[in-house]
Amino acid sequence: MTTSKRTMELITNANTRFAMIGGGVIGGGWIARFLLMGFDVTIYDPDPDAKRKVEQVLANARRSMPGLYDYMLPQEGTALFCHSIKDAVSNATWIGESTPERLNLKQSILKEIQIHCSKDAIIASSTSGFKPSQLQNKSINPQQIIVAHPFNPVYLVPLVELVGYSETTDKAASILSKLGMHPLVLRKEIDAHIADRLLEAVWREGLWLINDGIATTTEIDDAIRYGFGLRWAQMGMFETYRIAGGEEGMAHFIEQFGPALKWPWTKLMDVPELSDELVTKIADQSNQQSGDYSINQLEHIRDDNLVSIMRSLKLKDWGAGNLLNTLDLELERNQVNPAEPLSQAKDVLTINRVIPSSWLDYNGHMNDSHYAEVFSKASDIILRRLGADPDYIARGYSYFTVDMKIDYRNECHAGEEISVHTSIKIADGKKLDLYHEMKTATGTLSAKCSQFLLHVDLNSRKSCLPMEPLASALRKVVSS
Amino acid sequence: MTTSKRTMELITNANTRFAMIGGGVIGGGWIARFLLMGFDVTIYDPDPDAKRKVEQVLANARRSMPGLYDYMLPQEGTALFCHSIKDAVSNATWIGESTPERLNLKQSILKEIQIHCSKDAIIASSTSGFKPSQLQNKSINPQQIIVAHPFNPVYLVPLVELVGYSETTDKAASILSKLGMHPLVLRKEIDAHIADRLLEAVWREGLWLINDGIATTTEIDDAIRYGFGLRWAQMGMFETYRIAGGEEGMAHFIEQFGPALKWPWTKLMDVPELSDELVTKIADQSNQQSGDYSINQLEHIRDDNLVSIMRSLKLKDWGAGNLLNTLDLELERNQVNPAEPLSQAKDVLTINRVIPSSWLDYNGHMNDSHYAEVFSKASDIILRRLGADPDYIARGYSYFTVDMKIDYRNECHAGEEISVHTSIKIADGKKLDLYHEMKTATGTLSAKCSQFLLHVDLNSRKSCLPMEPLASALRKVVSS
Repeated sequence: MTTSKRTMELITNANTRFAMIGGGVIGGGWIARFLLMGFDVTIYDPDPDAKRKVEQVLANARRSMPGLYDYMLPQEGTALFCHSIKDAVSNATWIGESTPERLNLKQSILKEIQIHCSKDAIIASSTSGFKPSQLQNKSINPQQIIVAHPFNPVYLVPLVELVGYSETTDKAASILSKLGMHPLVLRKEIDAHIADRLLEAVWREGLWLINDGIATTTEIDDAIRYGFGLRWAQMGMFETYRIAGGEEGMAHFIEQFGPALKWPWTKLMDVPELSDELVTKIADQSNQQSGDYSINQLEHIRDDNLVSIMRSLKLKDWGAGNLLNTLDLELERNQVNPAEPLSQAKDVLTINRVIPSSWLDYNGHMNDSHYAEVFSKASDIILRRLGADPDYIARGYSYFTVDMKIDYRNECHAGEEISVHTSIKIADGKKLDLYHEMKTATGTLSAKCSQFLLHVDLNSRKSCLPMEPLASALRKVVSS
Repeated sequence: MTTSKRTMELITNANTRFAMIGGGVIGGGWIARFLLMGFDVTIYDPDPDAKRKVEQVLANARRSMPGLYDYMLPQEGTALFCHSIKDAVSNATWIGESTPERLNLKQSILKEIQIHCSKDAIIASSTSGFKPSQLQNKSINPQQIIVAHPFNPVYLVPLVELVGYSETTDKAASILSKLGMHPLVLRKEIDAHIADRLLEAVWREGLWLINDGIATTTEIDDAIRYGFGLRWAQMGMFETYRIAGGEEGMAHFIEQFGPALKWPWTKLMDVPELSDELVTKIADQSNQQSGDYSINQLEHIRDDNLVSIMRSLKLKDWGAGNLLNTLDLELERNQVNPAEPLSQAKDVLTINRVIPSSWLDYNGHMNDSHYAEVFSKASDIILRRLGADPDYIARGYSYFTVDMKIDYRNECHAGEEISVHTSIKIADGKKLDLYHEMKTATGTLSAKCSQFLLHVDLNSRKSCLPMEPLASALRKVVSS
């Protein structure tokens, strides 16, 4: 049963065939997201080192991205490195372009792509600065060229800005949503789109602060990550300020804060000269700030933190957490066959997932409490399939756990695939006794768990007999 | 035993006596942090509604801040509302000033404060825009006036910018660190300090995007919270870009990204007119974005997410997570008496904490798996006290859980205080059997747990006999 996912349907439109031109950090990030979401990718990059570079990004993605979700992702797709743009794009329906940020280079590559690709394919440039109209310059089929600007690391950060013909961007948005991303379709094209304009403003101000000896890179970063960065991981600037304005509202806030725009707070009128001296100053400060870690170590820390932060937003179903929940529902639908009847006679697959690194403890393995989390989730899935779903709970009935016993048999590690099979031992009136077995992908028994639950009235918080349709479902389980 | 914390030493210098002039959102946030960290606060605000407003902030702080930590905070201090600045400040050693952002008003209040306060007291203005030299204008004792600029919500967001005489800011930094904050001492005074200069740059760019019809408040916020906001909750701008630069380093990154500064990405040269039309446009968009929630609901969502995000950074001991771990160690030292010998004859207090809202599930109570988390943590504390501490683990030895059985007796709710007492049932060679009882502050039994552990060699991952000094400590437990 643990290999059932191997044959499961792709979660997105199986007809999308991805290609990527350019395998740097951004191209590699896209490739990793496509592959881990179960798609094959054809790739072209003239750099002889491209394959190694893509593999490096992919290794980072493999150790972090699957842990975002509470279900297994589809079986990883295959990366096929091609010898020409033609080979890479001729059969593709989505062609990513992630080449260096030089307009004439991009224009000539896009021209080459268009010669060889289907005229219905979406050609999506990762450009952070150029407008679609610049990329489409002299194109024979301009409406197929759009901007799809992602953010590093592409396999974790959900944002992607889409700019271009609305028919094409709408189609692109639908595809990218299914890859767990948040497509932001721009109303009008503009240099640098939206996010990089905001970032550019901060970057410029930061350079001035360093140039003028007001702050170091560490101090600026600390001003961000101990302050507004924490706020912005969940609510943006306007919603944050809406709260600051209180019940009197946003207009009141602007009246208060507005005049500051006239004050000399930012060095608006000038651009700092990127002299060798300033560049060296920044590089030295950055070395002092982060030099204890290699880039790869920093990538791991960043990725583990991102997984943790995004997962922490699941409970409130907020922002990036909502994206994870949405995809989890989709993944669950692919994993569980709701038509398969539950019976006391046989166990069912309840959990099939990868262990996120945030579940490890000081022993370097999955902490004992996360075994309980997995088993608790397995019980939730049985309860939902029996009919104790959100609607039923909203009616004021649910199950509470009375006791749980876990036998730990083997260690589990970050990135490892586990599955849980659950059987219903007792389903008698308000009593429900479940038995779970957790195994790794190779079949090693990781742990066993018995969990006894009672059906309760959520108003009185006392046990009571199950209501319909749950009561009938339980009777079927016993009789089958 | 659950009330032992009631008499515990204050975690910071008990000689600090806090006063606050101004009880708005920021003043109230400061007051909440002082009170919840165990300090009394004397308050002056001429607004007849001030007490209600402070209570409202305090209610938000009480439901979120204690859940940040794995140990109980000290007993909450008392808020004393005074009838004059004189009454509020005459006995204080730290006087906060959180009055409206008008320079002449602040100057006259600071003058009044200085007439009545000790000349050794720190006077800390929350001003977001003014420089200490402006506040100190004509002051008889300028070195005691500093800027201590916090961020909303002050009871959760750790950043505070300190500007002024270095002797005073150093003293202030030491006090604020012990309150769980991250003091950022500025090298030079500058309008709007550091963070608000960065925010101001984003705000201005955002206003242009709305003014020009490029994006709505929702779209700008989404560009932040699905994108760079996630990154900035843990690493700031420079460390993030350091990674983007790869092994070639920061100077390489600047060379690549630098030229963009010359491009017309940001509307630098002008300031959008805050016409009624633009203000209405923003307010309308904001209503559409967040109007389903009241401000208080948004505050709760924001606070729960902040607690979750900050707690998610504990594992890597990173950024705000490092601040939590640091204070937790301090709180643990206050709770646990390391000189108290462990013995089989009696139980010891291992956990005393508040339940964070992020531990709730769809039944509105603490999820069963978090009981396991609490008990697992209780065992960790016993192990550490026996000598299986980080140093011992670094030598290659530890304990693994073999089985865990939890009897759930009563529900636990967010914000509720719980404590766990643990006794050692068996300590025989490599075997360790622990028994935990979890109770609420009123003595209600929440759950019982038996946990059986084996001592292991972390290299072979197999069980083995304990090494010294753990072995001797275990013998003492048995013989005592």
